[in-house]
Amino acid sequence: MKAIEIKRDIIRITKGNIERTEDAIVTEHPVTVKINGQEFVTMVCTPEYIEDMVIGYLASEGIIKKYDEIKEIWVQEKEGFVHVKTDKVNPYFQDFQNKRYITSCCGMSRQGFVFVNDALTAKKMDDVSVKLTPDDCFRLMKDLQNSAVTFQNTGGVHNAALCDANGLVLSRMDIGRHNALDKIYGHCLKNGISMEGKAIVFSGRISSEILLKVAKIGCELILSKSAPTELALELAEGLGITTVGFIRNDSLNIYTCPERILLND
Amino acid sequence: MKAIEIKRDIIRITKGNIERTEDAIVTEHPVTVKINGQEFVTMVCTPEYIEDMVIGYLASEGIIKKYDEIKEIWVQEKEGFVHVKTDKVNPYFQDFQNKRYITSCCGMSRQGFVFVNDALTAKKMDDVSVKLTPDDCFRLMKDLQNSAVTFQNTGGVHNAALCDANGLVLSRMDIGRHNALDKIYGHCLKNGISMEGKAIVFSGRISSEILLKVAKIGCELILSKSAPTELALELAEGLGITTVGFIRNDSLNIYTCPERILLND
Repeated sequence: MKAIEIKRDIIRITKGNIERTEDAIVTEHPVTVKINGQEFVTMVCTPEYIEDMVIGYLASEGIIKKYDEIKEIWVQEKEGFVHVKTDKVNPYFQDFQNKRYITSCCGMSRQGFVFVNDALTAKKMDDVSVKLTPDDCFRLMKDLQNSAVTFQNTGGVHNAALCDANGLVLSRMDIGRHNALDKIYGHCLKNGISMEGKAIVFSGRISSEILLKVAKIGCELILSKSAPTELALELAEGLGITTVGFIRNDSLNIYTCPERILLND
Repeated sequence: MKAIEIKRDIIRITKGNIERTEDAIVTEHPVTVKINGQEFVTMVCTPEYIEDMVIGYLASEGIIKKYDEIKEIWVQEKEGFVHVKTDKVNPYFQDFQNKRYITSCCGMSRQGFVFVNDALTAKKMDDVSVKLTPDDCFRLMKDLQNSAVTFQNTGGVHNAALCDANGLVLSRMDIGRHNALDKIYGHCLKNGISMEGKAIVFSGRISSEILLKVAKIGCELILSKSAPTELALELAEGLGITTVGFIRNDSLNIYTCPERILLND
């Protein structure tokens, strides 16, 4: 079975103390479902109970109505495929394949991983146009939280902001993590805002999709209140993006490309 | 502009005290993007900065490379449409429409809302096969947190469990909220597990998609550590599902169908 957690070397800062230590990072694996030999969907998940997940997904999407409509299901774990055989021809099936419904918390296409390959060779962030101290990181996270009025009222949204060392430049919120970042990206594109010297501050977890979105926006540094996934960190290393997570009170973790965080050690 | 928050009557229990009060709930709105007259994608979002979000989304998905590739963009706010005109014909465009990439945090198709209409008439949960006391809710949430070893190690996953009044029956975790529920759904389908007397305990927010998944699983009651959205609560009312949120320490909120929570008042 594939690992669910992986150990990784990180830099942890707690109350001003700098510690090089090991941290457990959750993994993230793509699984592609083929129905009757045809590629149907790719999901990113934690690699356990994959067969159950696919059965539940197909039922939940209305592709099957009962378990016995699945004639055969076979997980090719190493390669990341699940093969499903069914006699079922759902009237929504074709429609389903022709349209996409993006939920509040996502917004990444299959092309995401195609672009990664491009990005890994072509768009690596070699510049270090932004440098922040740990105190900058704590202050910017506090600024994000203070700007998050709707979160304070409802607890139901994610917050993202573009910032520089001086403070927040642009703050957006949404029930969808991706939407909050897309709102920033769209504004910057429309108004030609340069990413030089800028960072993203974010309330949500750093999954591979979030990391790729930061790369597409062209930002060198992401600060998050929450945890990253291992796949996100591998992409961040490849793309030269600094990831700082678990920024809470007076503690934070630096996962990748620490050259953009000013350490006095 | 559409409201971002809505006031709603709830029952709040704090340290054994029952209070009928008002709470602010975040809204959730579907937005459908049409490119050159053709329906492209439907996103669920917080209704502000919609135009920026769509520009950012199209750039992030590689549909446009630069802002000036958008010839015209027009938000039909009330109806929930964004119309985009572009000369751009992206080589991935067709492929994009033929395949879906489900990210770790989603798994709902456009058909979701089609099914809602069915469900609202056909699948209303009229039974009250499960009744929990507030103390059951606190205990079950604690059990979920105690079972969440990977979360404790990494902070990077969501947890879901099927439970009854006695405790957890089946506990699953995933980096994707939806995946965790799909793993439970698949197991129950495969093993013919009845939902009578059962509830779902969940670490994540109750969005409309999560609520619909609970309905599809056939569960009458969802307990969550986090906030619900207004759309989820409207669906829950229509479907007769009890939603309990913000279960933290000795406080919780009952949002819909309180008849499944035993109150001594």
